[in-house]
Amino acid sequence: MSKSLEQERQNVSFNVRDLSIYIYDNEERFNKLVEGFRILGEDPITKNDFSELGKSRIELFKVFAEKNKRLHELFNLTEGNVLPLLTHFSNQMPGSLSTYMFLPYIRHLGTDEQLKKWVERTLQMEVIGTYAQTELGHGSDVRSLETTATFDKETDEFIINSPTITSTKFWPGDLGLVANHVVCFAQLILNGEKKGVHGFIVPIRDLETNKTLPGIEAGDIGDKIGFNIKDNGYCRFNNVRIPRENMLMKYVKVSKSGEYKRRGDERVGYAVMMQVRDMLSHSAWRALAHALIISVRYSLVRTQFHIDEDDGAERKVMDYQLQQDKLIPLLAATFAMHAGAKKVSEMTQQNIRNIHEKEDFSMMKDLHATLCGTKAFYSYETDAGITKARLSCGGHGFSSYSGFTSIWREFAPTPTYEGDNTIMALQTARYLVNCLDKLRKGSALPENVDYLKNLKEILSIQKCSAKRASDFDVDLTLQTLQANAAYVIYRAARSILASVKEIGFKEAWDKKAGVNLIEASRAHMSVYTFKAFIDKINSQIQSPVLKIVMTRLCILYGIQKLLENPLGLMESEYLSSKQITMLRQRKEALLEEIRPDVVGLVDAFAYPDNTLRSVLGVYDGNVYENMMKLVRESNEFNKVDWTDTWEKHIKSLRYVKRPEPKL
Amino acid sequence: MSKSLEQERQNVSFNVRDLSIYIYDNEERFNKLVEGFRILGEDPITKNDFSELGKSRIELFKVFAEKNKRLHELFNLTEGNVLPLLTHFSNQMPGSLSTYMFLPYIRHLGTDEQLKKWVERTLQMEVIGTYAQTELGHGSDVRSLETTATFDKETDEFIINSPTITSTKFWPGDLGLVANHVVCFAQLILNGEKKGVHGFIVPIRDLETNKTLPGIEAGDIGDKIGFNIKDNGYCRFNNVRIPRENMLMKYVKVSKSGEYKRRGDERVGYAVMMQVRDMLSHSAWRALAHALIISVRYSLVRTQFHIDEDDGAERKVMDYQLQQDKLIPLLAATFAMHAGAKKVSEMTQQNIRNIHEKEDFSMMKDLHATLCGTKAFYSYETDAGITKARLSCGGHGFSSYSGFTSIWREFAPTPTYEGDNTIMALQTARYLVNCLDKLRKGSALPENVDYLKNLKEILSIQKCSAKRASDFDVDLTLQTLQANAAYVIYRAARSILASVKEIGFKEAWDKKAGVNLIEASRAHMSVYTFKAFIDKINSQIQSPVLKIVMTRLCILYGIQKLLENPLGLMESEYLSSKQITMLRQRKEALLEEIRPDVVGLVDAFAYPDNTLRSVLGVYDGNVYENMMKLVRESNEFNKVDWTDTWEKHIKSLRYVKRPEPKL
Repeated sequence: MSKSLEQERQNVSFNVRDLSIYIYDNEERFNKLVEGFRILGEDPITKNDFSELGKSRIELFKVFAEKNKRLHELFNLTEGNVLPLLTHFSNQMPGSLSTYMFLPYIRHLGTDEQLKKWVERTLQMEVIGTYAQTELGHGSDVRSLETTATFDKETDEFIINSPTITSTKFWPGDLGLVANHVVCFAQLILNGEKKGVHGFIVPIRDLETNKTLPGIEAGDIGDKIGFNIKDNGYCRFNNVRIPRENMLMKYVKVSKSGEYKRRGDERVGYAVMMQVRDMLSHSAWRALAHALIISVRYSLVRTQFHIDEDDGAERKVMDYQLQQDKLIPLLAATFAMHAGAKKVSEMTQQNIRNIHEKEDFSMMKDLHATLCGTKAFYSYETDAGITKARLSCGGHGFSSYSGFTSIWREFAPTPTYEGDNTIMALQTARYLVNCLDKLRKGSALPENVDYLKNLKEILSIQKCSAKRASDFDVDLTLQTLQANAAYVIYRAARSILASVKEIGFKEAWDKKAGVNLIEASRAHMSVYTFKAFIDKINSQIQSPVLKIVMTRLCILYGIQKLLENPLGLMESEYLSSKQITMLRQRKEALLEEIRPDVVGLVDAFAYPDNTLRSVLGVYDGNVYENMMKLVRESNEFNKVDWTDTWEKHIKSLRYVKRPEPKL
Repeated sequence: MSKSLEQERQNVSFNVRDLSIYIYDNEERFNKLVEGFRILGEDPITKNDFSELGKSRIELFKVFAEKNKRLHELFNLTEGNVLPLLTHFSNQMPGSLSTYMFLPYIRHLGTDEQLKKWVERTLQMEVIGTYAQTELGHGSDVRSLETTATFDKETDEFIINSPTITSTKFWPGDLGLVANHVVCFAQLILNGEKKGVHGFIVPIRDLETNKTLPGIEAGDIGDKIGFNIKDNGYCRFNNVRIPRENMLMKYVKVSKSGEYKRRGDERVGYAVMMQVRDMLSHSAWRALAHALIISVRYSLVRTQFHIDEDDGAERKVMDYQLQQDKLIPLLAATFAMHAGAKKVSEMTQQNIRNIHEKEDFSMMKDLHATLCGTKAFYSYETDAGITKARLSCGGHGFSSYSGFTSIWREFAPTPTYEGDNTIMALQTARYLVNCLDKLRKGSALPENVDYLKNLKEILSIQKCSAKRASDFDVDLTLQTLQANAAYVIYRAARSILASVKEIGFKEAWDKKAGVNLIEASRAHMSVYTFKAFIDKINSQIQSPVLKIVMTRLCILYGIQKLLENPLGLMESEYLSSKQITMLRQRKEALLEEIRPDVVGLVDAFAYPDNTLRSVLGVYDGNVYENMMKLVRESNEFNKVDWTDTWEKHIKSLRYVKRPEPKL
């Protein structure tokens, strides 16, 4: 064990296990997780193998198909369980969308008969499905999808077609090779009339041979910047006939005679998307924690430059203010997003109960806005945070042995898929602007936005009361975040109003207000997250020492958000110039206060070395010995006989007749 | 040709060729570039091949070794030429460091006899060298390198040793496989006494077999998050003996008897590092331009959501304010960095002339600070900018056919290598703080920092005079940038002074001032870059219409930098809250003004489709047809017979006996 890490661990002010239990909700769940990690690390097939790095997509797919098979033997992956926590590559596993996406769509949108027909076979992985929504020419704008499902009364079938190049289904995971069914979203055409986009279960590959069925063209869409184990695919339909009963008909019915009827409240259909966005909000804190365990431990082992001018000891990298400034606010963000994701999960569950038990949809709008916000801003935070954490590790962060390559490549699609972040953030903004309108009309607002009721005071008289940096405690930081959000939301609404008369609402929204709308959305989500964090600390942490540390992180999170986007504070004059300086000073003081506890804060996530897959983040801190061992033993590049390549293309360079340098 | 792109091109207000010539300095250079692009695109070996994507590191190395050989036949790569402009993969080519790094070190630090012995063989690629400086345990802190070179008087040799694991040479490009020599930086030990770090030419591989020589252990260091065609390597020395004449002795001499003498001014040695940083500053604007050509063209072809509520035409993505906000400030940054890099190149050349012609080192400090700044902040801007440009392309940006995978992976090491950005930015900050000190003592300052002389006025009475958004013209924007920089530099100096008495300068610098120092550095580099940009526009653009467009970009660049880091403006109260609002408004107006010219601004870089390697950025805008063609014809994944993998690991999933869900 590295001396430095040993000492750092001794100095941690709180009990690390207390924090682990806070993170993973309770002792039982934490123990299960540890047990899962252990199984993964000991199994010869699932355990991490550094020699996979640098392999081709095709080789990697083969390796991970085998790992996936083994995972299905080790764990029950077909029902809710803690496995998503265990592996940062789990989303990429072959067939994962069958459980995460295909099955929920059927469960939420299928009739009882459809459930009977499809659920069991899907759980058993005989039916491997994916959801085919986005097309080559349309992603976020679902209304404009071009694939058609035309009802043929004669045969009681739908005919599925891809009428244009741009209507090609494009991007669905698992579609490239392993899915044998899709839920295809298509424009329903009944008696020549368009009835909007609906979902249809379409078999695409033979269950016995996996060859595409007649009328289907499907395949993988090629290499990507990340998420490359997944066979994201494309699919084209040429007069593919499916029985009428393959339309998902819980909320819409097409009768044998071609009659179209809605039944029940179709908003239930959003529930799938909500569950997926909920899941992605959690993946954000998990991935960022992963990156930070590595960076923080390495910064406690790594030294750079002598402390004194003479040749004495070197300074630990973590002791530089700049390193603290890179990593500690990200640690705060990790715990803040953790609390925000937990809260939105609870809201998601509550909403489903409300709907099923009392057909109460009253939470839908607030929940939708919140989920869009957590999805968008948490994934941005983590995407950028992983890069920042990597860059904080100097040159070695660039090596895939650091672990950052796989963390980043697994997480990289998150800002884009399941709702592009920009579109998501605008959804939140639309809700916020509507809330202002409600407020004007005197309606009550849900708790998440009730701070807006102080808007008038903020715009006129109320100013921040801080007299010194230390005044920024939980309450004052929250007040400032709320004042800022209220002002920025107001500003966004104003920027629409300013041009709505001249060019109409839609032009004003698209062409004049976009930047302000995103800022409004961001500011609100900082309030939401801060509040979720402090509420969780107060309700779930007993240990007074741990409470102090977590409260510091919470305040730091709030201040960091204010300092990252301070324009609203300036324009509203809610803060004076001196108070801006205080915010900076408060942040610097918090970095110093949190510094001694950093190793405990990352250890608490309890990711074992096998899961970290990082030579820089190893628990015992023996970074350099491990790095040399990997380079010598696990690097396939060094095992190749290069003689031929070298003779032909390198040695021969010395005999090249070089042209005159004309260019 | 896409109708949309055709029309956009007709609407461009200026002559695109005028801008191309501005970018590439003159007509002759521009024509050469176009000719080079043509040769590369027509040659069957060097031309882009999308089917390379997704290959393993080992396969890719073979492919690029062949491409490299062909490049040496097509162009003369051994002398200064425009080739670095031509290919975004040129830095990764096998042996490239021999020309870029090894040779310059020998030229600058070698004696006449050493030049005679090494230069010609290196130009001919018989000697392939690299520079072995960084070690497993030490990167930026060169003084602490552990490799030793002990002089043995008896045999007139140096004995090179790697005494510890951490002293292993680590990271040098080409060291993994192709280099047969290194300039090894090692602690010189003479008669048992340490004499500091010096450079030694050490043969490491046999010229005829490429096997490592006795006492040498060397190899590739493994997979990386990018730059994976390059064989970055490691090397250990075990009593490796080299003749005394292999020490680079232009500025230091060790005699046969072991006497140590300095001669001349060793600062010349920095010249190599300076040239490399100069080159990297240029790679920043080139890579960002590459990304933006793709994003801008695609945003003019791609439509999303209907313009009206009914089902009419869809809106071009570029017509959304949010898309403009993502891309147009980056376009401004590209041209600003272009001008900043051109200026620092001229300074670098001038400095070398000053030194060689009149031993005048007076420019060194200002140039060093500027190069550290351009290297650090331009590479940050481009690294983040490539990601932003990619995310602006929705889902398809994630496909490697978009081109972003190779652009990003090629550029990704730039913030880290040749001087970690944080260390670089601190070097600039150190210079700036010293300038304040000089000012206090009444000394004159170089032109790049002469705005500091107004510090007193800025701190006391001078405030921004803007009364409306349009007042922010070139002059007022520059004044505001300068006032901000002066204040932030002052603040950084203050933050050291505040604790220097208590804890000393070094502790204050490392532990209290870091964040402020980086901000100082950043603010200064914005001033430098803005000024370089407007000076270049005024001195080199004749066309009045083009001048208008470029001046808009220049102002936008300045305003963007102020809005990105506005804390100094707030704390100094140089701007009022209303003026902050004006800055935002001015930016929004500029986005609209620049919008109609965007296609001309990217077309001017004249990268042909072969160089872009992007299906989204094709000149004719036929994005979707091209995408389907690639997916169908160039995706190796779809050509594999997957039967075996599918049978064994996918089909078999349906027969797995699933455990109870315990986890």
